[in-house]
Amino acid sequence: MNTPKKTLRGIVPPMITPLIDTDTLDTKGVENLVEHLIKGGVSGIFILGTTGEAQHLSVKIKTELIKKTCVCVNGRVPVLVGITDTSVYESIKLAEVAAEYKAEAVVAAPPYYFALGQPELIEYYTLLADKCSLPLYLYNMPSHTKTMIEPGTVMALSKHKNVIGLKDSSANGVYFCKLLSMFKDQPEFELFVGPEEMMASVVLMGASGGVSGGANVYPEIFVDVYNAAANKNVDKTIELQNKMMLVSQELYGIGRFGSSYIKGIKTALSLKGICSDFLAQPFNLFKDPEKEKVKIAVEKLDKLLK
Amino acid sequence: MNTPKKTLRGIVPPMITPLIDTDTLDTKGVENLVEHLIKGGVSGIFILGTTGEAQHLSVKIKTELIKKTCVCVNGRVPVLVGITDTSVYESIKLAEVAAEYKAEAVVAAPPYYFALGQPELIEYYTLLADKCSLPLYLYNMPSHTKTMIEPGTVMALSKHKNVIGLKDSSANGVYFCKLLSMFKDQPEFELFVGPEEMMASVVLMGASGGVSGGANVYPEIFVDVYNAAANKNVDKTIELQNKMMLVSQELYGIGRFGSSYIKGIKTALSLKGICSDFLAQPFNLFKDPEKEKVKIAVEKLDKLLK
Amino acid sequence: MNTPKKTLRGIVPPMITPLIDTDTLDTKGVENLVEHLIKGGVSGIFILGTTGEAQHLSVKIKTELIKKTCVCVNGRVPVLVGITDTSVYESIKLAEVAAEYKAEAVVAAPPYYFALGQPELIEYYTLLADKCSLPLYLYNMPSHTKTMIEPGTVMALSKHKNVIGLKDSSANGVYFCKLLSMFKDQPEFELFVGPEEMMASVVLMGASGGVSGGANVYPEIFVDVYNAAANKNVDKTIELQNKMMLVSQELYGIGRFGSSYIKGIKTALSLKGICSDFLAQPFNLFKDPEKEKVKIAVEKLDKLLK
Amino acid sequence: MNTPKKTLRGIVPPMITPLIDTDTLDTKGVENLVEHLIKGGVSGIFILGTTGEAQHLSVKIKTELIKKTCVCVNGRVPVLVGITDTSVYESIKLAEVAAEYKAEAVVAAPPYYFALGQPELIEYYTLLADKCSLPLYLYNMPSHTKTMIEPGTVMALSKHKNVIGLKDSSANGVYFCKLLSMFKDQPEFELFVGPEEMMASVVLMGASGGVSGGANVYPEIFVDVYNAAANKNVDKTIELQNKMMLVSQELYGIGRFGSSYIKGIKTALSLKGICSDFLAQPFNLFKDPEKEKVKIAVEKLDKLLK
Repeated sequence: MNTPKKTLRGIVPPMITPLIDTDTLDTKGVENLVEHLIKGGVSGIFILGTTGEAQHLSVKIKTELIKKTCVCVNGRVPVLVGITDTSVYESIKLAEVAAEYKAEAVVAAPPYYFALGQPELIEYYTLLADKCSLPLYLYNMPSHTKTMIEPGTVMALSKHKNVIGLKDSSANGVYFCKLLSMFKDQPEFELFVGPEEMMASVVLMGASGGVSGGANVYPEIFVDVYNAAANKNVDKTIELQNKMMLVSQELYGIGRFGSSYIKGIKTALSLKGICSDFLAQPFNLFKDPEKEKVKIAVEKLDKLLK
Repeated sequence: MNTPKKTLRGIVPPMITPLIDTDTLDTKGVENLVEHLIKGGVSGIFILGTTGEAQHLSVKIKTELIKKTCVCVNGRVPVLVGITDTSVYESIKLAEVAAEYKAEAVVAAPPYYFALGQPELIEYYTLLADKCSLPLYLYNMPSHTKTMIEPGTVMALSKHKNVIGLKDSSANGVYFCKLLSMFKDQPEFELFVGPEEMMASVVLMGASGGVSGGANVYPEIFVDVYNAAANKNVDKTIELQNKMMLVSQELYGIGRFGSSYIKGIKTALSLKGICSDFLAQPFNLFKDPEKEKVKIAVEKLDKLLK
Repeated sequence: MNTPKKTLRGIVPPMITPLIDTDTLDTKGVENLVEHLIKGGVSGIFILGTTGEAQHLSVKIKTELIKKTCVCVNGRVPVLVGITDTSVYESIKLAEVAAEYKAEAVVAAPPYYFALGQPELIEYYTLLADKCSLPLYLYNMPSHTKTMIEPGTVMALSKHKNVIGLKDSSANGVYFCKLLSMFKDQPEFELFVGPEEMMASVVLMGASGGVSGGANVYPEIFVDVYNAAANKNVDKTIELQNKMMLVSQELYGIGRFGSSYIKGIKTALSLKGICSDFLAQPFNLFKDPEKEKVKIAVEKLDKLLK
Repeated sequence: MNTPKKTLRGIVPPMITPLIDTDTLDTKGVENLVEHLIKGGVSGIFILGTTGEAQHLSVKIKTELIKKTCVCVNGRVPVLVGITDTSVYESIKLAEVAAEYKAEAVVAAPPYYFALGQPELIEYYTLLADKCSLPLYLYNMPSHTKTMIEPGTVMALSKHKNVIGLKDSSANGVYFCKLLSMFKDQPEFELFVGPEEMMASVVLMGASGGVSGGANVYPEIFVDVYNAAANKNVDKTIELQNKMMLVSQELYGIGRFGSSYIKGIKTALSLKGICSDFLAQPFNLFKDPEKEKVKIAVEKLDKLLK
């Protein structure tokens, strides 16, 4: 039986990948960032997700990151490893690396070149769950994969003993609330939400927690929001949510294109001395005018989130 | 000053339009349905929305429906009137009809043939708000209009004294929670959510209420969920939400195409003896096999929602 | 029998709607524009299409435009009238107006609020074709209607004696070439292409002609391209195509948003003294900096297209 | 200087990848298929494209396929190798393999997880072209990559001495005809079209040729259509096009989902004794009822295309 002893709940940041250049890991940065997150109270760390730029990294770098992160964390919190790939055999190989270094679980979005039909998704995830020795989280990310893992598909896959939960980054409130209701009698099936803006609203309704990008920089405020919501304290949740929303408001809108969000986070972490702000190609790190804006944002947030 | 005396909160069903045929109103059905809704505890009635098949109705029928509904309601709850049209002059004409029959406010989605840019949206809504004597709700419905009314656009338009709120049917939890946070210091600006599945989650976070389609058939359970969430009773909200979710689960998935949801509601209301199940062309009412399925669903729901 | 005596072939411009303001027709502009087009050699005139801003016009203006255009044309070329509306009864009413003023045919895109399924499309168009006394062209415009009229649906509808052709504005070369092949044995079913850039390529393969927006300003060059392609003169077609492409290249990219194309055409016609450059709300006419750019473009084109 | 001595023109099939199972190449199948294609008159062979299921293959299999194909082809026609990957370093590694085995050029679609902005695309392709020793074709595939390589971006990249052409699989006739016109004075920049249905229409207008999936099974008819169009024989082109269209009509619509097209081709090749019909996971080969349909289709096509 592969399921972890206890169910995971809380904030599990999608860790950015500290890089010196596209094919060189910033190992000191990984050390610093892991300490920063654990000190911030996170319940787990998710590496090689979308925010971790996994799709732009070589197999070599991915392997180094898994090893380095697991060594730094050293069992203090569970490490979840993204193994999303369009080739199922490459995913399985990466899952073996994760198992070797004692990660807790793996996370996989659907293959993202061809959009699969729902029966194809069921077969795909069944194969993956059969072949991975670690427990598997489904990862719903339709804006990037062009495929929704439909609620009926999630329910079907939840019957596989090695499929233990789902992370949803669709931003679709109907989808997430439908899942919460469908799984009301299977509370051990973990439902995590990606977008931090809606995290509080779904944790109040019973979600397991959030895979919140902003928690890379300011883990405490995300943990506080989660705790207030998990404790069903509505007033406090709203009050803390309004503080937490400052992170995305100040940090994510600088620059253009879908990569701005990751650039904002990496630049902020660099300014805080935690790790390098390098982004793997085809992305570029911010130039000086944008960096200046991030600097102002970080100074503002440091004060407001105290 | 056009804003209503007190802010609207609670369940405001998007009333279906009872029809004898595409160009003939089921007036007895309107009477019955209005009584059914008011008896069910709704806070207002929204006619000529998406669920009301407004886009498929002639101007003649729309005018009759406004008149008939306002007469039946007779001031017991506010009546909101959808005036969405691609021609702004047709919208303004309909708003005048709504004002004549003492509706409380009008509701308009963006023009839905050409997708507008955000500055075009601001000019469009400013013109509409200037020309309408009734207060105006924005209606965000990107799946049908191909345009998101971006948060910054909503904020800009909220400064117009005649723009009093927004109904969001995007199903996008990030969007809605962002609006809740942005308008935390303007609580008089009303934020209603369309999709019933996520209503509880956002009312807990401070939303004004829900424009819930299922409340056409079972208004009480939606009102109960709203009240529990508005009263910040998290456990009760979840408990009632799980009951409420049975409505969409049992009633909306019968038949194919986007119209199934409206067909399910109209057939259920017909089976309950409230109004005709006719749909305006190009939609068709369910045939016998689907009707039979709705019958079974209604019998099940009647028991479970008691 | 409703089909016109002879099959239409050639360039049928989607005429822009000359306006004094949103609800006032520029009647002198209509006169001038009709003469400009007929003098330019067009085979027909299509009013109240997308380029004609039909969706932004009131019923009153649409009626006036139909009457005025038919009077000006006075039988010299066929007039096609767009009757696209989300309400089938409003479409039928407009078709009656078109018939009254002796238009040749009507043109209808699918209802564009709800996206219909293919069986719903078949029922919709069958109803419309049954009720219209004039022959009907299907109008495929998925970017605006969210629905493709699939090839199988076109074939099914082509069996209706009152459905005589299709205008395709999908820009999808696979779709159009598939239709050409499917209708190889029904050459009387007319297949017109919207986007002018691909007109030559499909006329070479047998298409009936083009509903080319740029032909509002420079009808001759479009007619020349059509003739070269219809006469199977490949070298001349390519040579003329390269000239014709200057129109879209110079005129359509000024300004932002989907409306730029119509603004470019209207501003050019205004600079040529043919009609007003007013656009119906929610669109705005170009301001001086953009007008200046159009002026330079028109001067350049006037020289190059001589 | 890396550009090939002479410009490539004609039919360059996107070769399917013969497999025994997901991670085992059908080497005998590769031999047979290469002979079948060359005998059929193709001008080149493109491996590891979309039709080649490249994204579902491990690095090991990709390497084996490059080697095996190049050995079989043995310089008789150019071999083009798809190196599309979300990690630019994995793409570069694969390009080195292609160079080692004497392939003629490499082909890369944009990274397909994050959708890139146009300036990001320019930087990405510039890096790739700088680092690859073989000439590079751009590959526009927006349905899978969520990014259009805009005409201006193509023009900018065409200035790089190592970027020699583009394969467009957008099915967008406006886009392709715009490129043909933009590159009228750079005829050495090769413009190939993916979808076979529109190949004839654009070759008539000057395109370099087609990367036609159906040419895997029936190369001759595609070569014939190409030749007729390249020779500007319009009547013959249309006549042959109508025969060629039978391939997609009969073979691609069997089964569901986006993979049906590849399944139809692989099953047909298997029935002809050329190679195995296995598909890499997450796809499945057809089961008996679908195989039976393909069998009937192949028998029909074998007769009709004689």
